[in-house]
Amino acid sequence: MNGAELLLQTAVEQGVDVCFANPGTTEMELVGALDQVPGMRGVLGLFEGVVTGAADGYGRVTGRPALTLLHLGPGFANGIANLHNARRAHTPVVNLIGDHASWHLSADAPLTSDIESLASPVSLHVERVTGPGHTGSAMLEAIAAAIGPPSGVATLIVPQDAAWGAADLHDVGLPPEVEPPVDGDAVGAAATKLRSGDGVAILLGGVVRRAELEAAHRIAEDTGAKVWVDTFPAVLEQGRGLPRFDAIPYFPEQAIDALAGIRTLVCAGTRAPVAFFGYQSLGRSDLLDKGCDVLELCPPGSRGHLGLDALVDALECPAAKVTDLDAPEVPGGNLDMITMGQVVGALQPEGAIVVNEAATSGLGWAITAGSAPPHESFSLTGGAIGQGLPCAVGAAVAAPDRKVIALQADGSGLYTVQSLWTMAREGLDVTVVVCANRAYRILQMELHRTGNDDPGPQARALTDLGSPALDWVSLAKGFGVEAMQATTIEELRAGLERGLATEGPFLVEALI
Amino acid sequence: MNGAELLLQTAVEQGVDVCFANPGTTEMELVGALDQVPGMRGVLGLFEGVVTGAADGYGRVTGRPALTLLHLGPGFANGIANLHNARRAHTPVVNLIGDHASWHLSADAPLTSDIESLASPVSLHVERVTGPGHTGSAMLEAIAAAIGPPSGVATLIVPQDAAWGAADLHDVGLPPEVEPPVDGDAVGAAATKLRSGDGVAILLGGVVRRAELEAAHRIAEDTGAKVWVDTFPAVLEQGRGLPRFDAIPYFPEQAIDALAGIRTLVCAGTRAPVAFFGYQSLGRSDLLDKGCDVLELCPPGSRGHLGLDALVDALECPAAKVTDLDAPEVPGGNLDMITMGQVVGALQPEGAIVVNEAATSGLGWAITAGSAPPHESFSLTGGAIGQGLPCAVGAAVAAPDRKVIALQADGSGLYTVQSLWTMAREGLDVTVVVCANRAYRILQMELHRTGNDDPGPQARALTDLGSPALDWVSLAKGFGVEAMQATTIEELRAGLERGLATEGPFLVEALI
Repeated sequence: MNGAELLLQTAVEQGVDVCFANPGTTEMELVGALDQVPGMRGVLGLFEGVVTGAADGYGRVTGRPALTLLHLGPGFANGIANLHNARRAHTPVVNLIGDHASWHLSADAPLTSDIESLASPVSLHVERVTGPGHTGSAMLEAIAAAIGPPSGVATLIVPQDAAWGAADLHDVGLPPEVEPPVDGDAVGAAATKLRSGDGVAILLGGVVRRAELEAAHRIAEDTGAKVWVDTFPAVLEQGRGLPRFDAIPYFPEQAIDALAGIRTLVCAGTRAPVAFFGYQSLGRSDLLDKGCDVLELCPPGSRGHLGLDALVDALECPAAKVTDLDAPEVPGGNLDMITMGQVVGALQPEGAIVVNEAATSGLGWAITAGSAPPHESFSLTGGAIGQGLPCAVGAAVAAPDRKVIALQADGSGLYTVQSLWTMAREGLDVTVVVCANRAYRILQMELHRTGNDDPGPQARALTDLGSPALDWVSLAKGFGVEAMQATTIEELRAGLERGLATEGPFLVEALI
Repeated sequence: MNGAELLLQTAVEQGVDVCFANPGTTEMELVGALDQVPGMRGVLGLFEGVVTGAADGYGRVTGRPALTLLHLGPGFANGIANLHNARRAHTPVVNLIGDHASWHLSADAPLTSDIESLASPVSLHVERVTGPGHTGSAMLEAIAAAIGPPSGVATLIVPQDAAWGAADLHDVGLPPEVEPPVDGDAVGAAATKLRSGDGVAILLGGVVRRAELEAAHRIAEDTGAKVWVDTFPAVLEQGRGLPRFDAIPYFPEQAIDALAGIRTLVCAGTRAPVAFFGYQSLGRSDLLDKGCDVLELCPPGSRGHLGLDALVDALECPAAKVTDLDAPEVPGGNLDMITMGQVVGALQPEGAIVVNEAATSGLGWAITAGSAPPHESFSLTGGAIGQGLPCAVGAAVAAPDRKVIALQADGSGLYTVQSLWTMAREGLDVTVVVCANRAYRILQMELHRTGNDDPGPQARALTDLGSPALDWVSLAKGFGVEAMQATTIEELRAGLERGLATEGPFLVEALI
C-alpha cells in the first residue's frame, strides 16, 4: 500500500466516496489509487471550478464532504472561486492538492507556488502531509474539520513523495471529538426576550430545511416573532406544506427598511446580516438598527434547528399549522423573467433540487417557488459567479433519484460552462434553464447606483453580452448536451417538459 | 476627477492603454472612468483567466504592461493560473483588483476574502491603495515594478472608496530609477571561460528575439560554445534567416543526457534549468552535472541580449553567417500530430505570432518551425494550462497587423474556451488550430512513468476526453467564431488558408 492508497482507503472508511477531479502529473499516484481502493468514484471536470462547485453541490445535498483532486497551486487557484462559495455556505469539502515531491520544492520548478497562501483564504483547515504514513491521519483530520460543526472547507496538500511512498494501514487514528454547537445562555436569553417583549425577530440561514422551518414557525405562531431567511441561504427547503418566511432583500436600503424596528435578532445557524456591498450613497454596512441585540443560538456552519429545537422546548411552543398557497400555473403572455420563473415553478416536480444562479432573472421564480411542490433551492452564498452549473453537477451525483434544475443566468453560466460536459459524460439528470438576457444586468443596475445614469460606450460594452450573441444551444451541443432555444412560454414549457422527462442532461435557452 | 480617473489617467500618461476586464460591482467607478479618460481601451473577457492570459500575451508582444480589471478575491482567483504563467514568463502586467470600500471590510460581507494572500504568490509587487489621492502614485509604482527589470506581475488592490473619492491630478510623482541588470563580473568570467576552456555552454531564455539569437550565434561561432534555449521560453523568434539552437528536452532523463559534460553554463535572461517535475525513478531536480558552474550575465526578467552584447564586446566576436534550412512544404499522407505541424509550418506567414499550447501534439510543428518564415513563438512558461487561447487574444490586440496562430491542445483549450468570444467581439485576427486527440495525452504518458502500465477504468476515464467527444466546431459557433473540422491534410490546409485569409477569428479542429 502506498500513501495515496492509504489516503483514499481512510476516506472510504469514513463514508467519503466521491472524488471530483481534474488531476495533473503530481496526482498520478492518487489517480492510480482510485483503481486500487474499492468504493471511491472519480468524476472528471474539464476545469477546476467545475470540480470545486460540484463538491459544494454534493455537500449541500448530503451534509458529507466529497473530495476534490486538484493540481498544484495554479490548478487549485482555478477552483478557489467556488470554494469561496462553499466557505460561505459552510459546505463540507475536502480538497486534495497534489504538490511536487518534497525534495523538488527547493528547485522552484515552473509549477511551484505558495499553495498555503492560495488555500488559506478559503479553508478553515489547511495541512501539508508530511509523508506517506501521515496521509491517513491527515485525511481523517481533514474530514473531521470539514464536517465540523462548524462545517466547511478543509485542504490537504499532498506532496507526490507522500503519495508514492510505502504506507501502513494502521497509521490511522480516531476522529476527534466535536463540541455541541448550541449556546444554552443564548437560548435562555432568547426565550426570555420572546416571552417578555416585542421587537424580537428570528433569522434562519445556512442549511434551512423542514426542521428549521417548522421550529421557527412554532416559535413565531406562539410568540408573534417575525422570521426572516438570509438573502442567500446554502439550502432552503420550500414549497407546499412548508412554512414560508420572507428573505432579507438584496439591496441594503430595502433591507434596512425591512429590518427596522428589530431590537433583538435571534440567529440560528447564521450571523447578523450585512450589506453585500458598501455603497457611497449609504455609507454603512449594518442592516440592523443601531443597538439591536444579536443572540446566536448556534453558530454558522451548524444546523439551525439544534438551537431552535432547544428554544421550542424552553418556550414549550405548541405545534403550528401551515396554510398553503394555491399551486402555481403556467401563465399566459410573453416569455420574460417573470413568466419564465412561473413556468418553472408550475412544472418542477416534488423533491426537485433547484440550483438558483439566475441573478436578476430569478425574480419570477422567487415569487412562485413558495407555492410549488416541496423542493430545495441552493443559492449563491459567496457571490462568486459561476457556481450554478457545477453545483448542479454535484447535486445530481449526490441525488441520482431526484430531478435537478439549474436556473442559470447566462453571464454567470459562462464562467464554468464546461460543467455541461460532465453532465453529459455522467448522464446526470439535470435540466438547465439558461436565463438569456445577454447582459450583465446586475452591473447595469450597479452602474446606475453609482450615479452613472448615462453610461458611455465603454461602460455599455463591458456590461453587454449581446455582441456577438452567445448561442447556448451550440455550446451545449459542443459539450455533448441536447438543447433547444425557447422564445415563447409554450416553447419553454415544451423544453422543460422534455428535460424533466429525459434521464440525463437537457438545456433550454430561454430568451427573456 | 475621482480616484478611478486619476488612476487611469496616470496609466495612459505612462503609455499603458489597454485594459482587459471582467469587472463587478466594486469596479463600477473604474468602468465609468474608461469613458472619462481618453486613450484607454477596455476589452471584455467572459472569464478572468481570459483577461489575465490576454494581458500576458499583450505584454509578451509589446514589452509593456496591459491592465487587468478584476473583481475582488474570487474574481482575481479565477485569473491566478494565467498570472502564474505570466510570472514565470516575467511578462509585465498590472492587475487592478477592486475591493470593498475600506470601511466595509470589517463587516466580512459575502465577497470579502484575503486578497493579499491570493495575490502574493503570483505578484512581485502588491499594494493596497490607501485613498483616492494615492491611486496615481500607486499606479506609477505598479507600472515601474511591472516593467522592471526584472519585469513581472504587479497588483494593485483598489478599495471602492479610493475609486469614488475626489482626487487631484498633481498627486502623481515620477517613476523610480531602475538599476541596469548586467553583471559585469559574470561577463568577465564568462569571457575568460569561453576563451580558455571547453565545456562552456550558453543558455537563452525568457524573451529570446533576434538580438539574443545573433549575439549568441556570434559567440558560439567564435568560441565553439554550444547554445541551448529553455524548454519553454516566453518568446522565441525563429525561422529562416535566424540562428537555430536546440531546446532543452522536457523529460529530465533526456535533458540530463543532453546537458552532460557542461562545466560552465552561461545564462542570459534565465537561470539554471531544473526538472519540470520530480520523479521517484530519478530522485533529483538538477539537470546539470554536479559541480557545473553557473554564470548569470543578466537575471530572469531582463533581456538576455544586454548581457550577451557585453560578452560579444568583451570577446570581440566577429559577425557570423546563418545557414538556412529548406522551407517546409505541405506533406502527403494522413493527418497526425507530425503532419499537422508540418502543414502549419508550411503555411504560416512571415511575422506570425504562434501561441503554442499544443502540448504533446506540438512535436510536428516544433521540428518544422525553424525552417518556416521568421515568426515568434510563445510557450507555456508556468505549466498552468489554459494559457493559449487567452494569450492569442492579447497578442492579437497588441499586434493587429500580424497574423496570430493559436496551436492549441484540446484538453488545455477547454480551461479558457471563453476566449473565443472575445476574439469574435473584437474581430481579432486569430487562426485557432485545435489539436484534437481527445485525451489528456501527457497524463497518459505520466501515468506510465509512475509504473502504472495498465491503468484501470478510473485512471483511463480521468485521462480521456472522448466520451462524449467534444465538438469544437459547435463550441466555436456558440461563441460567435466560424469554424470547420479537418480530418485530412487537405482539409487542414483548406481551413488554415481560409483562416489566414480571413480578417478575424477562424477555428480549425484537426482530428489527429
